[in-house]
Amino acid sequence: MMMVTMTTEMQKCMDDCMACHRMCMQTMTYCMMMGDKFMEGNCMRMMQDCAMMCQTCNNFMVNGSDMCKEVCALCAEMCMRCAMECEKFAEDAQMMACAKMLRECAASCQMMMA
Amino acid sequence: MMMVTMTTEMQKCMDDCMACHRMCMQTMTYCMMMGDKFMEGNCMRMMQDCAMMCQTCNNFMVNGSDMCKEVCALCAEMCMRCAMECEKFAEDAQMMACAKMLRECAASCQMMMA
Amino acid sequence: MMMVTMTTEMQKCMDDCMACHRMCMQTMTYCMMMGDKFMEGNCMRMMQDCAMMCQTCNNFMVNGSDMCKEVCALCAEMCMRCAMECEKFAEDAQMMACAKMLRECAASCQMMMA
Amino acid sequence: MMMVTMTTEMQKCMDDCMACHRMCMQTMTYCMMMGDKFMEGNCMRMMQDCAMMCQTCNNFMVNGSDMCKEVCALCAEMCMRCAMECEKFAEDAQMMACAKMLRECAASCQMMMA
Repeated sequence: MMMVTMTTEMQKCMDDCMACHRMCMQTMTYCMMMGDKFMEGNCMRMMQDCAMMCQTCNNFMVNGSDMCKEVCALCAEMCMRCAMECEKFAEDAQMMACAKMLRECAASCQMMMA
Repeated sequence: MMMVTMTTEMQKCMDDCMACHRMCMQTMTYCMMMGDKFMEGNCMRMMQDCAMMCQTCNNFMVNGSDMCKEVCALCAEMCMRCAMECEKFAEDAQMMACAKMLRECAASCQMMMA
Repeated sequence: MMMVTMTTEMQKCMDDCMACHRMCMQTMTYCMMMGDKFMEGNCMRMMQDCAMMCQTCNNFMVNGSDMCKEVCALCAEMCMRCAMECEKFAEDAQMMACAKMLRECAASCQMMMA
Repeated sequence: MMMVTMTTEMQKCMDDCMACHRMCMQTMTYCMMMGDKFMEGNCMRMMQDCAMMCQTCNNFMVNGSDMCKEVCALCAEMCMRCAMECEKFAEDAQMMACAKMLRECAASCQMMMA
């Protein structure tokens, strides 16, 4: 069976991408409920971008695509940028949990680029 | 934080949807490698449909959407139909593993409809 | 070539689904910019649901899937519900344009169910 | 209304991405029906990658995302590579139509990178 060929690192990266997708989507819902400053700036849009790219990145790995590395590189960059944006809300537990997940996902994606 | 409101059943259903999405995509790749009878009939298309619907279903649950039950109902039906198609390849380990995952995902989706 | 088999109605339905997906995504961005009452209630979440379901519905038609009718039925219902929500903002041009697109997409999806 | 800010080039690029997504999905179905040499090599997987990336690329433009250029660059590269793969089937009308669409989409995406 083909699944034998999948490395532990790639398995972790897929899991992190889907966990990060979920976290971003849920944090967007949280921001909409909170309103005001949580809606300002680029944070909402960046979480939406990350959610989309994490799902796409997961799908490329699932398919064993040739361009996995390039997609992972782009995903890692988006997640890092978004984490920095989330960390501006330093006193908010949800935003900081999202930032943490984003950094973890970025690290996993960077592992794929090696 | 909002994630408190998510039930254990829904969490399991999301996990099963994503595992089923991955299994269907990988089994499609397997069928393409095997060729011949693995490409005949509706099995390939049904796995592709299930992969798409499982991902959509996961996303509806992540968003806490009003129409979760209806999407889960449709996902459950597709997964059951696809499982029956996969089970026609009774001597093939990959196809039977896919069928098993599809039935598990269908059961989780049916739990959401209650 | 296979594309010959696609009816004019299905072609229009796919186009409407993608136009509706785009309209919902752009109207969500508009609501985030406007803030306040545009963020209240279920409108944002319903537009997000519609965007997802329209894209899924388009993909099922593209693939010529067995379950097209069922997916179109669900898409039509979501679009109708979302249109009613948007129409609460009767003096807002963007919200009313979104409602109009949603009703057009719902009508096209209902045509597929016949 | 916000849609005024969208350039004609971006509008065309979104349309090309969705047309290319559709073409790739339908050509995959065609290849599965034809079987044999149409299933060999990387062509199927590359069309699947392109379909996914075109849809993601469209969504980034719809959202007016910061990272549009980077996503367009990656999409352009994938489409070019896939077109070359399709062009190996020089006597097949469907494969050549797919290659033509892929090259058109790549050109539109490259316009976005300027």
